[in-house]
Amino acid sequence: MTDLVEFVALSLLPAACALSAAERIRAGDSPRIVVDDLAARAARDEPQHASMLRSRAAAALQRAASSGIEAIAWTDPRYPAALTTIAVPPPVLWVRGDPLALDVPAVAIVGSRAASPYGLAVATQLGGDLAAAGLAVVSGMARGIDSAAHRGALDRGGVTVAVLGSAVDVMYPAEHAGLAREIERKNGAVVSELVPGTAPLAMFFPRRNRIISGLSRAVVVVEANEKSGSLITARCALEQGRDVLAVPGSVLSGRNRGAHALLRDGARIVESADDILEELGMARRARGAGESTAHGAKFDPLLDHLPPGEACDLDAISERSGLNSPRLLPRLFDLELQGLVRRVGGGRFVRVDGTC
Amino acid sequence: MTDLVEFVALSLLPAACALSAAERIRAGDSPRIVVDDLAARAARDEPQHASMLRSRAAAALQRAASSGIEAIAWTDPRYPAALTTIAVPPPVLWVRGDPLALDVPAVAIVGSRAASPYGLAVATQLGGDLAAAGLAVVSGMARGIDSAAHRGALDRGGVTVAVLGSAVDVMYPAEHAGLAREIERKNGAVVSELVPGTAPLAMFFPRRNRIISGLSRAVVVVEANEKSGSLITARCALEQGRDVLAVPGSVLSGRNRGAHALLRDGARIVESADDILEELGMARRARGAGESTAHGAKFDPLLDHLPPGEACDLDAISERSGLNSPRLLPRLFDLELQGLVRRVGGGRFVRVDGTC
Repeated sequence: MTDLVEFVALSLLPAACALSAAERIRAGDSPRIVVDDLAARAARDEPQHASMLRSRAAAALQRAASSGIEAIAWTDPRYPAALTTIAVPPPVLWVRGDPLALDVPAVAIVGSRAASPYGLAVATQLGGDLAAAGLAVVSGMARGIDSAAHRGALDRGGVTVAVLGSAVDVMYPAEHAGLAREIERKNGAVVSELVPGTAPLAMFFPRRNRIISGLSRAVVVVEANEKSGSLITARCALEQGRDVLAVPGSVLSGRNRGAHALLRDGARIVESADDILEELGMARRARGAGESTAHGAKFDPLLDHLPPGEACDLDAISERSGLNSPRLLPRLFDLELQGLVRRVGGGRFVRVDGTC
Repeated sequence: MTDLVEFVALSLLPAACALSAAERIRAGDSPRIVVDDLAARAARDEPQHASMLRSRAAAALQRAASSGIEAIAWTDPRYPAALTTIAVPPPVLWVRGDPLALDVPAVAIVGSRAASPYGLAVATQLGGDLAAAGLAVVSGMARGIDSAAHRGALDRGGVTVAVLGSAVDVMYPAEHAGLAREIERKNGAVVSELVPGTAPLAMFFPRRNRIISGLSRAVVVVEANEKSGSLITARCALEQGRDVLAVPGSVLSGRNRGAHALLRDGARIVESADDILEELGMARRARGAGESTAHGAKFDPLLDHLPPGEACDLDAISERSGLNSPRLLPRLFDLELQGLVRRVGGGRFVRVDGTC
């Protein structure tokens, strides 16, 4: 609990401190010391700043507990492994619904708020088909493409995760309160890095987008114009080593310029969920029997770095294999999907025996 | 005239003889001897086959002359240089309208006959914009995308070339007779490799497509489903070393599966004519001043293989530069567009002096 207060306090520091905080936590510094140091640096003339942050953190945790909101710190075994691989993981994730939803292999679907009927139909279809294939659908619960993707997943009985640009107890847009409740009730999760009570400020949304891509193996952009925030999510995805895919559309409306620009830059074109599954190595398309197994499993030397029966965290696997986390995670996902690796608590992975 | 009869006779041989005929003509054999040899091989039990072909050829030429149709043999200086670079050039092009239209740098726009309003609007727009940029628009005068592309070029006062799967005096579809007349009248051309009077048989259309791409520097596919004949044109274009581009569209209608498959395979995405011009090195987009000149001209070693003042045909340039024709032609086009090379009669190129 003490540590949790420290992690919440970390998240209350100015955004400019976030990278330092992440680097020091990664280096093994105690969160208490990091809070002390960074609070002193952020507010030189205010010696009580650290304890003030801790009081606010404790109050936030109390408020969360009384509203059924879980606070999951970076070091919590329930913290999603994928998110630990990004440059600046949120010190704490505030979660409504089922935290287990955050560890289901996921794909993000993002796009325009002012979506056309075409974009909405595509997002709903893709959300539903990906959910039916066992993937979690991550999005930002905004109007338009985002909520259509959540809705598609829900209506097919799938798992969906909404990452907000406000606290999870401040619904924005307000008309999506019902959608949020449905996501929580149906094995999904509504999450945010912002302490309960935080209003949806414009500055939060670009940073929120790194969590959408960070939780996901791939980001699919549907109907984004040139200025769409979903292009920020796509850029985050590339920085994080995630796949970026885009759905084409009319060249006359101007609604797809962002998606088409991504295609021009090498994003994979998506006509249906099969294209996404294929990119993730979960192809349902007709192809040579056993081809993907032969590729990913038997010959994946990564397995050599996972001693049978020993659960390893990403840092350990990274050190042994020489691969950095953004490269490592997709391969671990592949091995997991092939049943050759299993995820256990604390973002650790264990090799599944029985392959010879 | 004698040679012209021989070339027409060559074009009357079975399609299976076309590659042999082209190879022997390229090797320098006299067309008369090639007709004799191939006629003997094609109809062993009919010793008069060659002279029968010559009579039919002479009759076809007479019929053409009386209808204002020009017959342009492969060796005619008016024969389009681009077409001499493909594996099997038509021995004769039958032309209504202005043969000079065939030597304007060209782009083909092809696509579905059963086009949607979206596809028609895009084809008309692209045809118009390319024509306005000084390119000829080549297509097949079919219903749908093809005629929309021709129409777009005509309405902007540009040059357009229709390549038919019937003879140029057999209008198919019949309702496009007016369009054909307008193309001829407005500095364009209606062309075919089929002798006058030939009906539009299904077998002619795939072969016709190689002429559409062969006349063009690039082929743009608009709204093609998976079985569209325009994918044959795209394949021909790739074999001929031409660029292939495709316009995206809805992923829900099924109308764009062919175009999207091309994008997946690396075709460049087209949102507007600027994308095509950029691919051809005629970019109108903002970029460093003089950049394309610096690239294509000053440093293009190809110019070294063109002695100033000497007109060289493709074979000679190919021999000197070591580049085969499909690779050579796009670069010569570039140099032509930059005013550094000029095309003269007989498909020959001459270096323009004054660069230092």
